[in-house]
Parts: sequence; C-alpha cells; structure tokens
Amino acid sequence: MKKIEAIIKPFKVDDIKEALNEIGIKGMTLTEVKGYGRQKGHKEIYRGAEYVVDFIPKVRIEVVVEDEQAEQVVGTIREAANTGKIGDGKIFVIPVEDVVRVRTGERGPEAV
Amino acid sequence: MKKIEAIIKPFKVDDIKEALNEIGIKGMTLTEVKGYGRQKGHKEIYRGAEYVVDFIPKVRIEVVVEDEQAEQVVGTIREAANTGKIGDGKIFVIPVEDVVRVRTGERGPEAV
Amino acid sequence: MKKIEAIIKPFKVDDIKEALNEIGIKGMTLTEVKGYGRQKGHKEIYRGAEYVVDFIPKVRIEVVVEDEQAEQVVGTIREAANTGKIGDGKIFVIPVEDVVRVRTGERGPEAV
Ligand SMILES: Nc1ncnc2c1ncn2[C@@H]1O[C@H](COP(=O)(O)OP(=O)(O)OP(=O)(O)O)[C@@H](O)[C@H]1O
Ligand SMILES: Nc1ncnc2c1ncn2[C@@H]1O[C@H](COP(=O)(O)OP(=O)(O)OP(=O)(O)O)[C@@H](O)[C@H]1O
Ligand SMILES: Nc1ncnc2c1ncn2[C@@H]1O[C@H](COP(=O)(O)OP(=O)(O)OP(=O)(O)O)[C@@H](O)[C@H]1O
Ligand SMILES: [Mg+2]
Ligand SMILES: [Mg+2]
Ligand SMILES: [Mg+2]
Repeated sequence: MKKIEAIIKPFKVDDIKEALNEIGIKGMTLTEVKGYGRQKGHKEIYRGAEYVVDFIPKVRIEVVVEDEQAEQVVGTIREAANTGKIGDGKIFVIPVEDVVRVRTGERGPEAV
Repeated sequence: MKKIEAIIKPFKVDDIKEALNEIGIKGMTLTEVKGYGRQKGHKEIYRGAEYVVDFIPKVRIEVVVEDEQAEQVVGTIREAANTGKIGDGKIFVIPVEDVVRVRTGERGPEAV
Repeated sequence: MKKIEAIIKPFKVDDIKEALNEIGIKGMTLTEVKGYGRQKGHKEIYRGAEYVVDFIPKVRIEVVVEDEQAEQVVGTIREAANTGKIGDGKIFVIPVEDVVRVRTGERGPEAV
C-alpha cells in the first residue's frame, strides 16, 4: 500500500475531495499545517492578500490506497490542486507496510 | 523501526494511552485531524449526535517502536480503539529508517 | 528521497528554520502536535513552568529532501533543537518513493 500525502492550498480541499470521490476513494484524513516551499522571502497570495512567504496555512490531505491506485490518486490530486500559481503544493508518496481496520480487524489491502 | 499511525475517535485517546503504557510504550505524538472512511454520506455518531459522514474530528496517534514491538502496539491500539461502531479507525504501519534522540544524540533502536 | 520528521520544542522553530535555511533547505511543513517521551510522570519545563509530563505541546517539522541531503538535515536539526534538557525532541527518517511539484508537474528529486 502507499500513503499519498499532499500539502495543498486550503481553498482547494473541496475540489480535491470531489475529484477523489469520483475515482472511488473512500477514505482520507486532513490536517491543518503551515509551510513554505521555494519562494521564501517572495510573495504568495493567501485569501486574496499577498504575503511574504514565510509560513503560510496549508492543508495536508492523506490517502492510503493499494499500490495499483496510487498513480491515479497522485494524478487526480495534482490536477485538482493546480492553479498555475506558486504555492500550489507538493505530493509525497510513502510506503505503507500494513493497514488495519479497527472495527472489523481486517488487514492489508482489503482494510484500506 | 516502524511508525504506527492510528486515526481514532477522540474520546478513545485516554484508553489507548493507558493500554500503551501498560505494554511499556514510552513515547507518542498526537495530532488533531479530520477525516472520513467508507461511510461518506451515511451517519456516524460524534459526541452523542449523529453526523452525516463528511469530515469528522479524529485524533492521530503516532508511536515509533522497534520492529519486534510493532505487532504488539498494533494489537493494543486496535483493542483499545474498538467500539464495534463505524468510524472506529484505521491503523497504518510505516517503515522508519532512523531515529535520533535530540538531547543525547543516540540513534537507531536505542533512541526510540 | 527521505522525509525528516522532527518533533521539537515550539520555541525552537525559528532557530531550526534559520539553520535549515543556511544549508539551503527550501521547503518545510509545520504541524502543532502534543506528545510525551520517556519522562511520563516526571516534570518537563514548558513556557517557564514545570509540567508533569503528560501531553505537552510540540511542533512537528517535516522536510523532504534528496537522499544525499538527509544526513545533513538530521544533523542540522539536532544541533539547533538541542538545549540539553529533557523533552528536546526526536527525529525520524522515513523513505519517500516519489515527489510531485503540483504547479510544474515535475517529479522525483528535482520536484523536492
Ligand atoms: N521539501 C519540502 N519538504 C516538506 N514540505 C514541503 C517541501 N516543499 C514544499 N513543502 C510544503 O508544500 C507546501 C507547498 O509548496 P510549494 O507549492 O510552494 O512548493 P514549491 O516547490 O515552492 O513550488 P512552487 O514553485 O510552485 O511554489 C509548502 O507550503 C510546504 O508546506
Ligand atoms: N484510506 C484512508 N486513507 C487515509 N485515511 C483514512 C483512510 N480510511 C480511513 N481513514 C481515516 O481513518 C478515520 C477512521 O476511518 P473509519 O474507521 O471510518 O474507516 P472505515 O474503513 O470506514 O471503517 P468502518 O466501516 O468501521 O467505519 C477516517 O475518519 C479517516 O480520517
Ligand atoms: N517513540 C516515540 N514515538 C512517537 N513520538 C515520540 C516518541 N518518542 C518521543 N516522541 C515525541 O517526541 C517528543 C519529544 O520526545 P522527548 O525529547 O521527550 O524524547 P525522550 O526519548 O524522552 O528524550 P529525553 O530523555 O531527552 O526527554 C515527545 O513529546 C513526543 O511527541
Ligand atoms: Mg513555493
Ligand atoms: Mg467509516
Ligand atoms: Mg522525554
């Protein structure tokens, strides 16, 4: 299995969620985070105002899927998150060795 | 080493913490997150009220342990987190290649 | 690529950020978390007051870098985070299989 971690602009959460629903993704986890990428010291737009890029609010979306779905999830998030402006985000793919569904005790791919 | 990441119901934090203490776990990290699993559009109970499952508050518990302890940690969290109701949680096992204890500079399994 | 996850004292964020900038690190993500390490039940200082170590506010700093930079990032964070007192933090190194830069579509090491 893989964990896809995407750090994206907060206003894009709904679009990404919809896009993931359309490809059948059934679970995800969101965290409020802050960050910056390569433009530290330059300007990035947040809520219509320009900020010098230091730490800007972002959302981390995490989706754990079977190996075969990982590439599609990455592509779907990338497309939905993209505005063409700086700060659109980063996507990281991390290996997951096991998954457990607490209620049922299922493990591995069927637990995802 | 392994990182055990469990996304669980917030009211279960104390039970899980106690259960982990009992098996000798000495460190853990909590993050407030939001998420949903497979019942999107159906109802899940949160603080005694029913919510249509969109994003519901959850807590992520992270525990990094030596390989040999991972299975016991997973089982302990699963047992303590389980209520038998939907939304009880997911546990992910992720490889960790190195650990450093900042104060002492220890690395690897003894740093956990 | 590697993800360096450091759980550190909140007042150390600026020092660590500066130290990482000095070695050319261009991106990072922060999350507010709570945690405890090995002194559960003993006392740790937070904002000048002593707390019995249960869950104490910490910050998670995440930096994804190419393999060759990982060791330098770990060392830099360790040095900047270290006060010599308990609770200084833990650093975890986690494998990252792929990175995507959303705006440009770049992948792999050049996307970091
Ligand atoms: N190397 C990295 N490690 C950890 N987090 C990162 C890294 N790079 C970016 N991030 C996170 O992703 C968020 C978005 O990054 P961002 O889109 O600005 O990347 P970028 O490489 O600067 O691309 P762009 O030039 O399009 O702005 C940052 O605010 C930060 O939270
Ligand atoms: N595939 C996934 N990727 C990332 N996070 C997930 C995934 N599945 C579940 N989660 C997280 O775990 C939390 C709990 O999931 P949940 O227990 O509802 O899983 P489930 O498979 O729907 O099981 P159940 O049928 O018992 O509800 C979700 O709110 C979400 O934060
Ligand atoms: N094994 C672990 N798994 C997950 N998180 C951990 C673990 N150990 C420590 N942490 C996180 O790192 C933070 C800092 O840990 P801490 O520095 O107290 O580690 P320690 O081993 O007790 O070292 P020290 O003896 O110097 O206090 C904790 O508050 C917790 O959030
Ligand atoms: Mg940027
Ligand atoms: Mg569910
Ligand atoms: Mg400690």
